[in-house]
Amino acid sequence: MRSKKMRVGILSAGGDCPGINAAIRGVGKTAIVEYGMDVVGIINGFSGLVEKQTISLSESQLSGILTLGGTILGTSRLKPFKVNEGEDPTVIPSLIKKHYEELNLEALVCIGGNGTQKTADLLAKEGLNIIGVPKTIDNDIWGTDLTFGFDTAVHIATEAIDRLHTTANSHKRVMVIEVMGHHAGWIALYSGIAGGGDVILLPEIPYDMELVAKCLLERSHKKKPYSIVVVGEGIFKEGKKKSAGAYMAKQIKRATGLETRETILGYIQRGGTPTATDRILATRFGTYAAQMVHNREFGKMVALRNGLVTSVPLSEVGGKTRLIEPDHSLIAKGRSMGVCFGDCTKRKI
Amino acid sequence: MRSKKMRVGILSAGGDCPGINAAIRGVGKTAIVEYGMDVVGIINGFSGLVEKQTISLSESQLSGILTLGGTILGTSRLKPFKVNEGEDPTVIPSLIKKHYEELNLEALVCIGGNGTQKTADLLAKEGLNIIGVPKTIDNDIWGTDLTFGFDTAVHIATEAIDRLHTTANSHKRVMVIEVMGHHAGWIALYSGIAGGGDVILLPEIPYDMELVAKCLLERSHKKKPYSIVVVGEGIFKEGKKKSAGAYMAKQIKRATGLETRETILGYIQRGGTPTATDRILATRFGTYAAQMVHNREFGKMVALRNGLVTSVPLSEVGGKTRLIEPDHSLIAKGRSMGVCFGDCTKRKI
Amino acid sequence: MRSKKMRVGILSAGGDCPGINAAIRGVGKTAIVEYGMDVVGIINGFSGLVEKQTISLSESQLSGILTLGGTILGTSRLKPFKVNEGEDPTVIPSLIKKHYEELNLEALVCIGGNGTQKTADLLAKEGLNIIGVPKTIDNDIWGTDLTFGFDTAVHIATEAIDRLHTTANSHKRVMVIEVMGHHAGWIALYSGIAGGGDVILLPEIPYDMELVAKCLLERSHKKKPYSIVVVGEGIFKEGKKKSAGAYMAKQIKRATGLETRETILGYIQRGGTPTATDRILATRFGTYAAQMVHNREFGKMVALRNGLVTSVPLSEVGGKTRLIEPDHSLIAKGRSMGVCFGDCTKRKI
Amino acid sequence: MRSKKMRVGILSAGGDCPGINAAIRGVGKTAIVEYGMDVVGIINGFSGLVEKQTISLSESQLSGILTLGGTILGTSRLKPFKVNEGEDPTVIPSLIKKHYEELNLEALVCIGGNGTQKTADLLAKEGLNIIGVPKTIDNDIWGTDLTFGFDTAVHIATEAIDRLHTTANSHKRVMVIEVMGHHAGWIALYSGIAGGGDVILLPEIPYDMELVAKCLLERSHKKKPYSIVVVGEGIFKEGKKKSAGAYMAKQIKRATGLETRETILGYIQRGGTPTATDRILATRFGTYAAQMVHNREFGKMVALRNGLVTSVPLSEVGGKTRLIEPDHSLIAKGRSMGVCFGDCTKRKI
Repeated sequence: MRSKKMRVGILSAGGDCPGINAAIRGVGKTAIVEYGMDVVGIINGFSGLVEKQTISLSESQLSGILTLGGTILGTSRLKPFKVNEGEDPTVIPSLIKKHYEELNLEALVCIGGNGTQKTADLLAKEGLNIIGVPKTIDNDIWGTDLTFGFDTAVHIATEAIDRLHTTANSHKRVMVIEVMGHHAGWIALYSGIAGGGDVILLPEIPYDMELVAKCLLERSHKKKPYSIVVVGEGIFKEGKKKSAGAYMAKQIKRATGLETRETILGYIQRGGTPTATDRILATRFGTYAAQMVHNREFGKMVALRNGLVTSVPLSEVGGKTRLIEPDHSLIAKGRSMGVCFGDCTKRKI
Repeated sequence: MRSKKMRVGILSAGGDCPGINAAIRGVGKTAIVEYGMDVVGIINGFSGLVEKQTISLSESQLSGILTLGGTILGTSRLKPFKVNEGEDPTVIPSLIKKHYEELNLEALVCIGGNGTQKTADLLAKEGLNIIGVPKTIDNDIWGTDLTFGFDTAVHIATEAIDRLHTTANSHKRVMVIEVMGHHAGWIALYSGIAGGGDVILLPEIPYDMELVAKCLLERSHKKKPYSIVVVGEGIFKEGKKKSAGAYMAKQIKRATGLETRETILGYIQRGGTPTATDRILATRFGTYAAQMVHNREFGKMVALRNGLVTSVPLSEVGGKTRLIEPDHSLIAKGRSMGVCFGDCTKRKI
Repeated sequence: MRSKKMRVGILSAGGDCPGINAAIRGVGKTAIVEYGMDVVGIINGFSGLVEKQTISLSESQLSGILTLGGTILGTSRLKPFKVNEGEDPTVIPSLIKKHYEELNLEALVCIGGNGTQKTADLLAKEGLNIIGVPKTIDNDIWGTDLTFGFDTAVHIATEAIDRLHTTANSHKRVMVIEVMGHHAGWIALYSGIAGGGDVILLPEIPYDMELVAKCLLERSHKKKPYSIVVVGEGIFKEGKKKSAGAYMAKQIKRATGLETRETILGYIQRGGTPTATDRILATRFGTYAAQMVHNREFGKMVALRNGLVTSVPLSEVGGKTRLIEPDHSLIAKGRSMGVCFGDCTKRKI
Repeated sequence: MRSKKMRVGILSAGGDCPGINAAIRGVGKTAIVEYGMDVVGIINGFSGLVEKQTISLSESQLSGILTLGGTILGTSRLKPFKVNEGEDPTVIPSLIKKHYEELNLEALVCIGGNGTQKTADLLAKEGLNIIGVPKTIDNDIWGTDLTFGFDTAVHIATEAIDRLHTTANSHKRVMVIEVMGHHAGWIALYSGIAGGGDVILLPEIPYDMELVAKCLLERSHKKKPYSIVVVGEGIFKEGKKKSAGAYMAKQIKRATGLETRETILGYIQRGGTPTATDRILATRFGTYAAQMVHNREFGKMVALRNGLVTSVPLSEVGGKTRLIEPDHSLIAKGRSMGVCFGDCTKRKI
């Protein structure tokens, strides 16, 4: 077919997230089976390019990883373009470029979150052939409607809320559950609706404690035996509060006098095997990235738009966070069923 | 707001499916909380209208049903417009119309599959104010990109395939798994890709046994210790074979000599609590249906189109089945990773 | 069979726990089907006897509750024999006795934890025909080798630890997980072994921070990329520390310099549907309790001893907690595989 | 401690089963950490001894396998003492003995079911230092109260029955589910009780079709909307029927006229990650086996007796199957709650 085999590198950077291995498999298998490329795995994110740590990925090494959480390539939080004061900001990027060339890479697929996509953009501007693949449980990457990892996190958070209903009901309590989402409240919104939360607090909607209390007391007066409050961890922008969930439970108890307990769901939201839905999205993203390599569509990130896999320029993505619009249809639908979002505005859909 | 309370009926008809209760809750809570309507539950699908069996649904009766499989209203397979020879085809529709009026319903929300939506259309043509809500694990309703129940079925089928990998590997076998889908292969395609199936056979793609055997033998020669074959139950159009999976296992054994076992997944695909994703879709569909009642948008079915909830005329939906297009992107992506779809065509994406 | 129907009451008291409904069903169905008794459900634990709040339980009301978490009878933490200063301690017991008689109960089955069994013993001493059924996720009731609720809690905690492995590995961290167990470390021990914990800290074994740090540093030096530390919530007897897990994570970071994160599993351990194992144990306990009623074996608690269901006098049970013996075989087995229990004693099994 | 390192081999033989890897890990880690032994893994059961295929097992290779289904050592169904007509029955045993010596093994741990324990006994009689570890989902190995794999199989079967309740209820059907168990009905009994089965048919209790039909019709007349029938696959001793479940569904339909559907659960019962309970049992068995090696207690099988891990002579185990006694307490308890076991005997507990 082609005289010389094309050689493509893959790395994963930033926090771990269910589906990374499914994406690596999608890129790798398509590159090998469909296009006859050579595939090189870069170890521990961008560190692997700095230290030239790689492994060759054959088809058989890509077998059996679809269902695994984490990443077989390892990851790191190294940001090549971020230097401490007094350091030369060109040293690490140059090294990466040099090793990219020495490894005879013709393209580099970077699987990662917001920070990784920003780095990917800067490397593209340095002349490397870069393709970004978005991943994060937080679902807050600009330019794509959805990221893999999100469905799994929502699944786990919803299962936890399901369990809390039992205990809340037996003890007639307010149960507060804090779910992940530093900047955006996507997990809180989706698991809150899927789990039947009564109050859902999102970083995007400033809440009024009096209204939250009023809503919970009204439920109590209406003889609803208990309430579930779902809190996104990022509701306190200034980051002063260590745990949004614990703080909120204390505030609720003070404001309402109701017996209140908190659960901080934490790291279990990002571990374990991805859901079927996340495996499929990661596979679609991965195979599409391989296709982009083949078509030499560089400097872009794979994205889902209106249900279709497509791509967006990395330059449009970098550094921007996709927050929930206050008039998001799921918020409107929640309100119409009586869910309180802390502002308690009763807007029509 | 309005001088007289609007009165809306809800029924579920056809096969059961995870998410029906979430949809009932979405319709009911929105109708009550947002629009101050009265909500009437019709028992056992259209039978409940024939026999005038109803219950009044208050907000508290709608609490706690979000997570339940099945339907609190019951269902039946009665088709009001289908009569035996010699019977008067107008008797049952007239009775339904009469009872609809006696119950003072201003609108009727019909949650169901293809057959139900067809009935819904015919009732709308009789002058009733009908809104359809699509549900089926098979995901094959015309006019909507997705139905609730599907994600749960794919989740269960994928989990089963995950388990089969272990056994297949230990015993170096071909494992055939038959999943649901009478007419369309959506569950087979999605669970097949999510579960890492090696061969995926769909009703939409006629298969060539020689090619299936060739693919499995090649895997065996390449020292892949085992293979997973995912079969949609509807691959034999004529319905002569009782079980597509058992038949296929026998054929494979005969054609390849490889040790082969089958699993017929069966009814466990449609039972139990819906996934978070299905609960959200069902909730979105339900609340949207209530909004349509409020806006008097009758004669339409709720639908998902390009990620947005919208509606389509029932007259366009009725009786049509949404099959997988042979050039569906997930099939193309599967092929590019080496999945065999029985026709073994190696098309470019 | 008998001229007059025997009448038996059932109540559940104390914290909720998976399997209570399975036990209620076991008592009730056996009482009705096997012995033709009348069954009365007491609402909200001992409060229901004080306020004479009951429901009649028929066979059909006991159908479908086997899988439900929580308790259909409700619960409360009322302790009839505990009074505030200046109050008459005989008032509430007398009321309970009076209502027990007015309800024509011939026996009362009390499903509950340590506190409930103590109350049960005191009521027996007041002359009531009492049978205790032990339940707690903590597995720390004296007199029985096992309580239902425990297997479910271990199952959930183990699943959480499984998820943490992925994240711990990706980020090369020490992950601390705090599981329930106020006085006894059963959940920590079992989930720690089942989840492959590297360090397991139990209330029963005082830990030495230096040894914990040494063990974690050794793992780090041996190039083990990460460690899992499972902590029972009751390791600080004085209860000064609000969260054992958070405090331990801080201590480990300080002592080792390793990146450390904590997860406090919390209330999700006691919610949701019971495991098959817990349903069976609860069913065995429940049916045995009904048989004890029939045989008029009062003043005793159902118990599991050496794999057999039997009974023990309530007077032997009350107020005592079943802790883990330091030479428990699972601790010995853990040590032999290199698990550190904080005291790091390398004893032979 | 000792001048020369002891050298122990481990193999797994027969069908796969969740927990084998946990047992391998238990043997290996204890042998290495506690006793400083060398550990050799034999590949593919007894075939690996015939072909001298082994791998050295270090502590790090034993990490991370606790949660994996299947067996990292592979398995085979080779029976060394079973030869075809005309073959010399001493050839393979001699070869095994020769390789055992050449590999300098001082002990061999054989993880397997009934057939494997029989082979283990014969090898012990040939003079090899053998220790058996029982494993099977069927729970039918003589000499031990419990085998690992069983709890996982019951867990999966119970989850499936839970799902069938929804569908059975929606469609007012009799649902028949066939679960594994060639000779013994342990899975059927335990999942049947845990899943709330109405009829449970076991190989150990010959059933009377008329009584089964009577029981199902009575339920139907009492307005119970549906019934669940749990069938052990081995109920037809002669093995004439291909599928006990499908045959039984047909018989029930014929005898009662009730709408009846079957589910054959099949291979998903033996795949996937073991439950916490099975991991703990497998770990206890594995560490105990290493201890037996150390103590040179050969010619025995690890066993659970009255809740304690102990050992039994292999000569007492071989070839015998542990069936359910007809007066097993769980059968009695089921009867007392109205469960029909096909013989419909109403015995007192």
